[in-house]
Formats: sequence, structure tokens, C-alpha cells
Amino acid sequence: MAATKTASKTDVLIIGAGPAGLMLALWLARLGVDARIVDKRTDKVYSGQADGFQVRSLEILDSFGIADKIWNESNHMIEVCFWNPDESGCIRRDNRVVNGRAGLSRFHEVVLHQGRAETFFLDAIRDSYGPSVAGGVGATDNKTRALVQERRISVERKVMPTSLTIDEQGAGDTTAYPVTVTLRHLSEAEATPTQMLSNVQDGLFRSNLNPPDDITMPPREAQASDAGPAATAAAAENDEVVQCKYVVGCDGAHSWTRKALGPEFDMVGEMTDYIWGVLDIVPITDFPDIRNRTMIHSASNGSLMVIPRENRLVRLYIQLTEVSVGSGRVDRSQIKPDMIIKAAKKIMSPYNIDYHYCDWWTAYQIGQRVGNHFSKLNRVFLAGDAVHTHSPKAGQGMNVSMQDTYNLGWKLGLVCKNILQPSVLSTYELERKAIAKQLIAFDHRFSRLFSGRPAKDILDETGVSMDEFASAFRQSHMFTTAVGICYQPSVLVAGPTDSDKSEAIGSIDENESVPQEHVPQSQAHSTSALSTACIVGMRFPSHQVLRHADARPWQLHHKMPSDGRFRLVVFGGELSSPSTSSSQLDRVNRLGAWLADTLLPRLPTITLMPGTTNLHGGGRPGYSLATQKPPSIIDVLLVYAGTLQDEEGLATSSFDLLGLHEVYHPFDPKLGHDYDKVFVDRPSHHDGEGKAYENYGIDRTRGALVGVRPDGYVGLVTSLDETGWPEVSKWLKGILEPRANGNE
Amino acid sequence: MAATKTASKTDVLIIGAGPAGLMLALWLARLGVDARIVDKRTDKVYSGQADGFQVRSLEILDSFGIADKIWNESNHMIEVCFWNPDESGCIRRDNRVVNGRAGLSRFHEVVLHQGRAETFFLDAIRDSYGPSVAGGVGATDNKTRALVQERRISVERKVMPTSLTIDEQGAGDTTAYPVTVTLRHLSEAEATPTQMLSNVQDGLFRSNLNPPDDITMPPREAQASDAGPAATAAAAENDEVVQCKYVVGCDGAHSWTRKALGPEFDMVGEMTDYIWGVLDIVPITDFPDIRNRTMIHSASNGSLMVIPRENRLVRLYIQLTEVSVGSGRVDRSQIKPDMIIKAAKKIMSPYNIDYHYCDWWTAYQIGQRVGNHFSKLNRVFLAGDAVHTHSPKAGQGMNVSMQDTYNLGWKLGLVCKNILQPSVLSTYELERKAIAKQLIAFDHRFSRLFSGRPAKDILDETGVSMDEFASAFRQSHMFTTAVGICYQPSVLVAGPTDSDKSEAIGSIDENESVPQEHVPQSQAHSTSALSTACIVGMRFPSHQVLRHADARPWQLHHKMPSDGRFRLVVFGGELSSPSTSSSQLDRVNRLGAWLADTLLPRLPTITLMPGTTNLHGGGRPGYSLATQKPPSIIDVLLVYAGTLQDEEGLATSSFDLLGLHEVYHPFDPKLGHDYDKVFVDRPSHHDGEGKAYENYGIDRTRGALVGVRPDGYVGLVTSLDETGWPEVSKWLKGILEPRANGNE
Repeated sequence: MAATKTASKTDVLIIGAGPAGLMLALWLARLGVDARIVDKRTDKVYSGQADGFQVRSLEILDSFGIADKIWNESNHMIEVCFWNPDESGCIRRDNRVVNGRAGLSRFHEVVLHQGRAETFFLDAIRDSYGPSVAGGVGATDNKTRALVQERRISVERKVMPTSLTIDEQGAGDTTAYPVTVTLRHLSEAEATPTQMLSNVQDGLFRSNLNPPDDITMPPREAQASDAGPAATAAAAENDEVVQCKYVVGCDGAHSWTRKALGPEFDMVGEMTDYIWGVLDIVPITDFPDIRNRTMIHSASNGSLMVIPRENRLVRLYIQLTEVSVGSGRVDRSQIKPDMIIKAAKKIMSPYNIDYHYCDWWTAYQIGQRVGNHFSKLNRVFLAGDAVHTHSPKAGQGMNVSMQDTYNLGWKLGLVCKNILQPSVLSTYELERKAIAKQLIAFDHRFSRLFSGRPAKDILDETGVSMDEFASAFRQSHMFTTAVGICYQPSVLVAGPTDSDKSEAIGSIDENESVPQEHVPQSQAHSTSALSTACIVGMRFPSHQVLRHADARPWQLHHKMPSDGRFRLVVFGGELSSPSTSSSQLDRVNRLGAWLADTLLPRLPTITLMPGTTNLHGGGRPGYSLATQKPPSIIDVLLVYAGTLQDEEGLATSSFDLLGLHEVYHPFDPKLGHDYDKVFVDRPSHHDGEGKAYENYGIDRTRGALVGVRPDGYVGLVTSLDETGWPEVSKWLKGILEPRANGNE
Repeated sequence: MAATKTASKTDVLIIGAGPAGLMLALWLARLGVDARIVDKRTDKVYSGQADGFQVRSLEILDSFGIADKIWNESNHMIEVCFWNPDESGCIRRDNRVVNGRAGLSRFHEVVLHQGRAETFFLDAIRDSYGPSVAGGVGATDNKTRALVQERRISVERKVMPTSLTIDEQGAGDTTAYPVTVTLRHLSEAEATPTQMLSNVQDGLFRSNLNPPDDITMPPREAQASDAGPAATAAAAENDEVVQCKYVVGCDGAHSWTRKALGPEFDMVGEMTDYIWGVLDIVPITDFPDIRNRTMIHSASNGSLMVIPRENRLVRLYIQLTEVSVGSGRVDRSQIKPDMIIKAAKKIMSPYNIDYHYCDWWTAYQIGQRVGNHFSKLNRVFLAGDAVHTHSPKAGQGMNVSMQDTYNLGWKLGLVCKNILQPSVLSTYELERKAIAKQLIAFDHRFSRLFSGRPAKDILDETGVSMDEFASAFRQSHMFTTAVGICYQPSVLVAGPTDSDKSEAIGSIDENESVPQEHVPQSQAHSTSALSTACIVGMRFPSHQVLRHADARPWQLHHKMPSDGRFRLVVFGGELSSPSTSSSQLDRVNRLGAWLADTLLPRLPTITLMPGTTNLHGGGRPGYSLATQKPPSIIDVLLVYAGTLQDEEGLATSSFDLLGLHEVYHPFDPKLGHDYDKVFVDRPSHHDGEGKAYENYGIDRTRGALVGVRPDGYVGLVTSLDETGWPEVSKWLKGILEPRANGNE
């Protein structure tokens, strides 16, 4: 619990500790940034709310080391079934298909209660600072230890903002703290709304059918600000005034932060007449597809979706056709679990469905809204439900919210560490507002197809075609998995020249670009043809490669953790082929010399937190070996194409690691060489083959050089050779501050 | 910390909390047995000691849910390199091969410090009792909650036995507590030997070059027993007298328990003149294979083995040719890390090797010894190093020790719960003494080949042939992985009739059988030909199958956790093929009816602890749904062969789960059907195909019925049909007590 203070400073203040806020806090913890995260509630969510984890979210969580836990505890949704009315109006299974698309990622969609993910976030934030034991080689160096002491982030609960002001004069000065926020420290009683005492009794708590669930404060006379709905007082006893460099509102659909920014930050959009109920139950049923993701359109009783969950639970989304919307608000008193299950029984008839145990329930009205602005002066930002709301059935809300702050976190963190140029912050709105617009467009279409009455036949024009519905569902997976999203060119994303545009396999129908006039552009240009699957603006894909030093297979993503570093992935071609190796090795080593002697000395270094240390050969999370000096902000990885094999499938290495330039095996006088930077594309003994060159679409002779942002998105694709080097320089020059004592 | 008591009772007392003792404690915790585990030391091991985890150990640890943690933190040893002298006497790499054999298991050999495994054991013992939160569907039923309250096991440290007596009259009475042990509760100072204050300063602590590391107690006048080396007093102030049903000595090479059983329990074997040093260091070297398992034979400076470890550590085993053994004990004062690294430098020349950080070091003299007896009256048992010691280089010690108590744990536990007939306990010595003898024979051969001087040429008869060494190493993997071990026929293992002996692919050259006169035999007979890869006496292998209800791929082992249940795996054949399905479904359902109506009502049930609950669809460890009644001791799993596929590779199920007899989808009035018992052998969408029928060697039309013991070893292979049913009855009748109120 935070102590009561009167004034303090912080680089970043995060308002709200849901998935969006926790993702941001985790980034800042991993970067060792001075930050705070406050939440007005007493505790995290224990039941209900979001449950879907999409492919890209799992990749992101894996980059922090917490996807395994979700993967193991969650239910995996492998197939999806479509049930539609037959000629007699009775439901029957029309189709069963794979849920998503095989081969998109090493992950697929899974479902688990949001509260477990929040627990893993909290554990990961704590573990960012390494083990508490001191001494031995496992301990971190003194500088890191001091940072940890000073900057440890933990969620401060029962803390509510009451006013926010921005000193617009100071907004241009990176050393200034221009945002002033007043925080009130609440009592236990003040922080516990009556609706929370039993979630099963009032499932509509936090539903959009309900008024905002803001905490009701006793009235106070003076209003220091008219920004929020809560009463504020200039100098209340438990108030604290915080001077912030940056503030991020992750405070949900009724965002206090958004309201504090004024009416020009309002959400725009529309509501529909469709009302849906949600039940999390342990079902007792003879319905055959109760453990599959299943979409049911009944002839005239509405639609239903089955989401099988962990621990025998099943979530049912049930259309409530008998709830009247009328002219104004819905009559909430009608909606109870009994009437929701009754609606489900009608839709699923002739199958039976019942339950003994209900874990959670709610209901909501389908609508889509998006915020006009995602940031004010790049000093206050909005993320997650605070800037986009929609219906939950596609399992997008928590995912897009976490991805918002995953996009923002490293930018804010590296600006605070004087590593990134502050102008990069303008890419947050550019990149995430486009996604929010696509999300709203997708939800608009999908929810209407799902809530509509099935067409009786081809002439039934007011009905929905079940073929169209299934087709829309199946075409949506590049967007719903978030694997297909593609950020627009900017200073971070060096687009190709017009003469070198590749097929943009990542382009999305609903793509609505965002005006770029305030966003700086990169002076570098990509050569897209060098890699047909590393697309600038899209996430760098992961494939299996073997570590040169010990033949252990790794997903390449596992060597690209979220630690704040940019990465240059050197696809060096066939180094071990006798016909090409000598000249190819020369090319790779010339690049190595240029990196070590020319590029890296100009760029900042970064102090890695113990929780981000990239260990080779496994190792304990948070266990860190203190290196002599902080590494460069640029991490260099080499992936070469293996060729020669003896009869057992083992590569006959024609070169030793030490034959490569030292930039590919950094030497530390106390720890020796780093064996974790060079990888080979060849079959493994136990785990099949990754076919990395083939899958990345890179020529085994020509190779390629791929620049990857700290969030795993491709920023540059260019040549290994001298012709590519200036592009690397230009790309990084537009993004990074020069090396100086003031970094970090 | 245990309170000081004067008298108490326990079903099982475990002496020693190393890997063997902890494995036993974990079994008893998972079974909810009344047990205690004591250790004279103040804490677990923090560095050094064992580090190798073999394939079968990982499978066993996975059956308790803790293999993942070891797998993730450990270093994986994928390849092994052999370096030998060339013509000029200089070492060079002769060969590089896969370490072990691909396809033996889903695991392969990994290395991690023993102390991490001990931590995971302690966590798993704690988690056996489920989460501490009460209420809701997650809470366990009242009976389980009471058991948990009463029987929670945790390691009692600083507790040392001082006397042990057996009332031989009472040994035949299963309700009696015939073993009396006096325990002394030590002070912190008494429990901390001076050697332990700094392990780097005295690496020979716990080495076999040292005298026993027993705690030195202040002399006391009266010796109540002459069994152990420590002084004892009949009624010392901090002594406690414990009446036990069973006592298990897991107290290491200098076992106090073994000595307490008298001289007929002595170890027999021999010592060699070979002395080896061990260094756990972060190496600074140009040796190319430092991150591979590497065996170096130098021309005349001795041999060396590289074991790359987690966290940049490497363990080096280094032959110390300059240490003289002479007529008696080795001169220990010679041996220090400096001289060990000096020996390593000579062997590895012309490569350089050095270090800044040393984590641990020791030295030992190679020898092999095995105990005459593993049990006294089946009331006191010995396990692990207490009955077999040998050299550490093949990474066997910790593994065989854990496997000893994995064999014993369920037997003791189910006898204490009145589920298993006490005569089954005699199979412990039968099964594990044979393994110990094989281990000693293996180590005898391997260590001499490794320590011997390499032969200069084919005429050099006193030298060791490097081809013979490499060949012996590679042939040993069925034994060293423990996948090849095969227990002899007994009441637990129904051997085939003479006319039906299959090729025993599990037989091992060194197999030395143990006299069976006191071991009851099964009245059942196996029909080996029905499954060419489920071999009676060997572990049931794991292959990937898909869950019928949701198409999620699972390793079949994941549905066979160590929860104390026997399993009947019904390989039901092609249920979904239109040509055969009807008759095949009939066969499977007739078996189901016989199981449900005839067999199971005669057999005991078992109360499952929350930590063993087998959840479908993932779920939180320790999270349990309270069923209405405890399940049968027999768990029935159905694996059928999938056939029809549509163009997307999806099975078109020609039957619903509910078309199967209820024994395959047990129904609970509050929780509905259990969807986690029926699996299909077909390709998955994301994870390839398990080809289970092919890999188990089972005919897709005929099928098979396989009986699996609670420790995963095959006890019976017979037919699905009426001809097989009597074999199932006879097999279980010889093992289990009949159902009665007195069970558990």
C-alpha cells in the first residue's frame, strides 16, 4: 500500500491496472523506468470479463516469458463448428473447420479467465528485477541493483486520480514534468463498490447496460477541475500531487483520463438493438459440440456461441431476443441468469442444456465506438477500452488493449532513458488508431451477421446467408489473430521505394490509414524483395533454428525478448558450404566489422534488467550474470543456412564460431564468449525442421539484413552488403539519440 | 519447524530429504497418506551435486507436473562429441553424434543443478493439497479438506534419527506400527557442519574421498543403540519417539538407516585407483565444443568430460592422473581447484581453458558398491545412494535414486490406504535390486573405458580402443535413459505364456535377475502379440492422440498422472469407419458394460487429492472440482483409430461421445459428463501426427486392452473381447484388496 504523501515526481503514471495498464507497467519494469501504476479498485478481477488470447498476444506475452503459463492453464480452441437450421427449422451441424489457420504462428487461440493473466503480469513485473538473493555471480552489478532499489514498480490499489492538468509550455521540453495529477488514497470501503460484493448477484456490474461504475465519493465543496465525474478537492487530507513526464489512461470504457482531457476526446460510434447475455457455467448437456467453439444460428430464437473454457467451464454468449430495447435504456431488471439460460435452451433445442454451477454472468448491448484522439501533446495517452469499445464475441478487446500498450511501452520507456527521440511518440496514434478503426469495422460487420436471423433461402433478403457468415468468419483470422496487422510507414518503418513494392500480404480490407502529417518519416528505404515474409510494418515471424554452439532448437522469437533492444537479424546465407563459404564468410565478417567499428560506437547502450537477460542454455528466470559493460541498444543475431549433413543428419561445420567477427559472439573478460547469437537453419534431431530460409522467403545465397523494432515489428529490410549499410545508418539515425553520457 | 514432542505415530517415516526422499514424499502427498520426512541438515543443496535428468526421470517428473520447469531452466544436451589423440598425439574431434536416440520419448537428456529440482519437489508437495482458498466450485469436498488438514507433509529439517527398532512379531499385522524410531531435534549449530560454511573452500565435503559427513554430536553417556555413528541418548530432552508402519532410508551413501539395520545390510563392491576432479565454472575458452557434451581422451594426460550447464555454467569432469592413491586413502590436501584446472589445461591443450567464476568443485575415487538387501521384513526400506553408489559421469545417481522411490511410493501409499495387498511390497526389492545391479555393471565397464589410456594402435593391448568406447557409450542409452528397463514378472507384471513370448525389445545385456521365491506371481497371462510396443514390465510409452471432444492434441502420458490409479487403456480400433464401426462399437460397449457392472463394483475407490485431479482443457494446478463420489481405483481411457477425413483433414465423426457406454464419459450430476477419457489417433491441425496405433504396434481392427500400473509400467496386455476379461480380473485380484468400507 502506498504511503500518503503530498508531492512527488514520476516519469510515467499509469492509471488503471487491467490488462492494458499491466502490459505497460511490465514494459516499464523490464526497462527499469521510474513509473507508477494506480488503480481505484481493491483487487484484480476474479471471475468473468475477458478470456480470449489471440495468436499475436501470446507471442507478445511469450516475449516476456509468461505465455507458457497461459498456454498450459488455458483451454485450446482447435476447431470451430457451425450449427444452422435445417429444412425443418431444427439446428444441425453444417460444418466443422480448423479455428484460425495452421502455420500462422507457433500459437493458436486459447481461452482463460482474464484474472489469471493479471496474476501472471503481476508476477512478471516483480520478477523483472531478478531474485532477491545477493552475492555470487548470480547477483546483478551495482548499477542495476541501485536501479532496482529505486524503480521497483508495484500496483498501488485504492488510489484514484481527481485532477489532471498539462503545462503546455513544458510539453516540448523532454526534461520537464508538465503533467500534474492529483491522486486520492481511498479507504477500503470507498474502494469497494456495493456491486462488487457478489458478482453472481449483480452480473450487470461493469456491463454497458449499467451506468458507469465510478466510485461514489462524498460531496466536497471545491471543484479543482471539472474534468472528471468524481468530486475532487484541492488539498484533501489523503491527496497526493504527482508531477509526471507522461500519463497513460488505461482506465476502461468509462475512462476518467479521457474525460479529464475534455470533450474533444469523446468517443464516436453507434449502438444497435441487439442484446446478448453471457453465462460462465459448468454445463450439464447432451449437445455434442459443447467442448468446441461453436456458432449456432437458430431459425427464430436468436444466435448463441459456445466458448469452452478451462476447469470444465463453458462460456455461452446468448442472444436475448425477448429483451426490448425500445426508445431508451434496456429494462435491466428483466435480465437474470434464469432468463438467459432459458433463451439458451430455446436456441439449442432439441438438445438439453443446464447447470448447477454459475461462475459469472452479464449482458450487454452491441455497439461500436472509437476515440477521436489517442494522445494529447504526446504527454497524455489513452489506450485500450478508453479509446475503443465493441462487442466481446470475437475475443478482441483484451488483446487489442494489451497490444496498444505493448506498442506504447517501449517508446515511452526508451524516451525516458534518453535512448529514443521523443518525436517517435507520435507513431503511437498513427499505428494504433488505424487498428482501432479496423477493429470497429470488423465488429460492426461480424456482430450483425451473427445477430441476424438466418435466411430461409436465397430469396430471403432480410435474412443473413449462413455461407456469408462462415466465410466472413474464416476470412477474418489475419485480423483477429493480429498476425496480419501492418503498421504504416513512419520513422520506425522504412517503407520500400515505389519501384520496389512487394506484394503486401499483410494488407487488410478494412485498413483505414491515419493522417501522417505530424509523423516523421524514415530517410531509409527497404528492399522488400530480399525477404518475401519479413514485411516492413508487420511482426517479424518466428521459425525454428538451431543454435550453432549446441544444436539446440529455438524459436527465433525466443532470442528476441522484450528487453528494449532493436535487433539486426543477419541472414548470412550458406556459411558452411565449401563452394561458397569463403566469400560468404567474408561478406558476413565485413558487415560485422562495419557494425562493430562504425555503427555501434555511435549508438546508445542499455542497462538490461535481470528479468530481461537473455540466457543461453536455459537458466533460471531472473538469474543474471553481471557483464562488464551494458550492451549496445542494437542486438545482432546471425542466422545462416546449413547445408552439409553426414548420414546422421548432423551438420559438418566447416567453420568454428571464433572464425566469425566478434560482434557475433561478444566476449566478456569474466564470462567468456557469448554462444547465443549464432543460429543455423537445419533439421533438428528431436523437433523436426524449421525451414527458416524457406519460410522467411530469403535466398540462401544472397541473404538479407532485417531490422526489427523492440516490439518485434519489421522496420527495415536491406542487403548484407555495403549497399545496405547506409540504409541501416539512416533508419537508426531517425530513431535513436546519439550515444552520450546522458543516456538512461 | 517441527515442535518438540515426546511420542507420536505416523504411517511412513522418510529419513533424508534429497531427491529420493522428496520423490517419495511427493507420492505420499499426492495420495493423501499420513507421512513425515526428516532431514538432519538445515537446508536443501544450493550448488554442486547431481545435475543430469534422464528421459524416464523427466517422464516421471512430468506425471507430477514438474518436468516443464526443469525442461525450461535446464541446458539441453543434444549432441555428443568425441575428441581423441591424432597421430601426433594432439586432440581432435573424431565424431559428433546425437546424444541418445531420437524418438525414444518426448524428452531427451537435460542438465540442471539438483537444488532447483529439490525446490520444484518442495513446491509440488505443497501444491498436492490444492490452493488454500476455500469456497466456490474450486474448493474440494469436506472429506478431502479434512485429509489435507490432517496429512499435510512438509520437510522437517534439523531432525536426526538416533535409534531404530522393529517389533518382528508385529510385522505381519497391517494395522500395527512395528517400527520405533527416536528422532532428535537439533539446534541450528548442531545441524550445520563446518564444511558447509563455504562450499568453494572445501569442495571435498560429501566426496567419497572424505570421511562420512555425519554431524558430530556432543558425547552422551548412554548408547541406546550401536547402529549409527552418531551418539544417542534414550531420553534426551529434544528426543521424540515415533511409532511407524513403515520407514524408508533415503539418507545417502553413508546411510544411518542402513547401518541401523545391522551388518547384513552392508554394501559390497570395489574401489579403483582412478581419481577424478569436478569443476562447475563459467569457462573462458577457445575450445569449439564447450557447449556440447564432449568426451576427451588425451594421449597421456588422462580424460575429461564437458557437461554444458544452465546459466553459462559448464561442468568439467577431469581425470587427475597426478594424484597418488598408494596403499590407502588419497592425500586430500593435494586436491584444490587450481590443480584440477591445471589438469584440464593439459588434457585440452592446445586449446585454452580458464575461469573467473567457480560455482562448486569436488573430487572422487571411482568405485561401485551395491547393498545386499533393499528391505527388512518389508517394513524398513532402503533407496537411492543408501543401496548403490558408483561414479557420477553417466548422470545416473540422482535418476536411479528417484526411480527407486517412484517404484516404492505408490505401493507403500496404497497399502496404507488399504487399497493394495501388502504382499505387493516385496516387488520393490525384486524390481529395483535388478536395476541397481545393472547400474553397477554398467558403471564398472563405462568408467574403466573412460579412465583408460587410449590405445595407440590396434596392437596396443593395454590401451582402450576409442571405437569400443564410443560404441559402448552409444549402446548404453536404453539403460542410461531408463526407457529400456524391464521389470520381471510378479503379481504386478503378468508375463506372457510360454507360447506367446514376444521379442523382448527391452532386455538388457547386463540384466541380472533377482531370486523371486518370496514374490507372489500373477495368475493372469498377457498376450504380447496384441501390442508390439507395450511390453509387460516396461514403461507404457507416450504418443500423441487427439481428445475426441475438442480435437486438442495430448501426449497420452498427460492423461495418466501419478495419482495412484491403475489404468485400463482400451485401444478400441476403428470406431468411426462406416464399414466396421457398428460391430466395433458393440465390442467396445460390451467391454464397457462388463467394466461398469461386473469389475469395478468389486474394486476399491480412491479419494483424489486436489493436486492430482486430472483436468480436461487445461486448468489451474491444484484447482479441483468436487465430484459427487470418489472414482474407482481403475481409470478407463479409450483410444480409437480415426479414419475418415474431409478435405481439410478433419475427422467426420460417425458417432457422438454419448453413443459410447457411460464408463467412457463418467457422468456427475453437478459437473455433467467427463469429456477427458476418449481419444482418437488422427493427425492434428498444428502439431503433426502421433501415429499412435502404429507406434504402439496395435492392429487397427483388432485393438488391445493394456493394464498400466500407477507408476506407468505395463502390467497386462490382453484382448478387448470376452476372452481378455478374465485376465483383467485375475490380474487385479492378485493386487488389490476387495472394495470395503475400510479402504483408505
